[in-house]
Amino acid sequence: MNRRITHVAGFDDAPFPRDHRGPVLVVGTVFAGSRLEGVLSTRVRRDGINATERLARSLTGSRHFPQLQAILLQGIAFAGFNVVDLAALHRETGLPVLVVARRPPDLAAIRRALLEHVPGGLRKWRLIEAAGPMEPIAGVQVQRQGLDPEDARMLVEALQIHGKLPEPLRTAHLIAGGIATGESRHRP
Amino acid sequence: MNRRITHVAGFDDAPFPRDHRGPVLVVGTVFAGSRLEGVLSTRVRRDGINATERLARSLTGSRHFPQLQAILLQGIAFAGFNVVDLAALHRETGLPVLVVARRPPDLAAIRRALLEHVPGGLRKWRLIEAAGPMEPIAGVQVQRQGLDPEDARMLVEALQIHGKLPEPLRTAHLIAGGIATGESRHRP
Repeated sequence: MNRRITHVAGFDDAPFPRDHRGPVLVVGTVFAGSRLEGVLSTRVRRDGINATERLARSLTGSRHFPQLQAILLQGIAFAGFNVVDLAALHRETGLPVLVVARRPPDLAAIRRALLEHVPGGLRKWRLIEAAGPMEPIAGVQVQRQGLDPEDARMLVEALQIHGKLPEPLRTAHLIAGGIATGESRHRP
Repeated sequence: MNRRITHVAGFDDAPFPRDHRGPVLVVGTVFAGSRLEGVLSTRVRRDGINATERLARSLTGSRHFPQLQAILLQGIAFAGFNVVDLAALHRETGLPVLVVARRPPDLAAIRRALLEHVPGGLRKWRLIEAAGPMEPIAGVQVQRQGLDPEDARMLVEALQIHGKLPEPLRTAHLIAGGIATGESRHRP
């Protein structure tokens, strides 16, 4: 990669009650460097299969899309087990995709839940496997699609403005929680 | 005032269709200096009279309230003509309140609309009159409650990070638009 990545979108989902069914708010932030440029929102079905398509559409339909250089996701699944197909999101947007988490996920528990309790869980587990292992980068856990490890590290470090979580994800998390519950709480 | 104001909340309302009736989303941001600390949300009735109470409750019920030092509002009315009682908001929160607008409002048109078309419009017009004239401060128009002109100027200038609109209001505007319509648009 020859240019620095400065225009980035970051997505997180809103909290929801345990018995909630149906759509869940997903918030996207668009940053140019450390400046918040715009806010996107969409909804994905709890435990559904439409997260990839909804994220792709939210991005490609946005006036920010022509400037965007990378996509960050707070975890590979939104609204419970609505697992994102990283390869498809990368292909449909033409942008590198980074999944970021503070801690390594408990893959054994996720696999068990998917295979035993979630309709279509095997296909979702395959998407998680296809995303590859999480790698420790700059103090967080990262899965990469379309970006080499060194560029991923530079991108994450450039966006660690107020803590280890990249600022687009920290901001998306605060917005999603604040809109869904009236007040944002806790760090992601 | 002996201390610098660093912890500030800023509120803006979401856009709504012309024929919309009922509640309208209002978004609050909480900043510590240039860092977004939290997001609040509430709803106020289109052309209603509950904005003051909803803003006060959103603030005093928030875990950020003990640190807060000032309130910024993007205009004195939310959701159409739901006019904020600045003196009451100041009294109920104990915090100074600043109304900020890019341009001077057309008071003659507002007065006419209130008195001719809005139920309870005379009382709302009295609230606008009681808020006093807008003053040009640091390139924006400001109404003050509980803050002298020099402290108001210092506060606005300290928060003009990405343009003339103080960052808590710029951010609240982007969030409110992005959540209500799927994508934030235009500057406030």
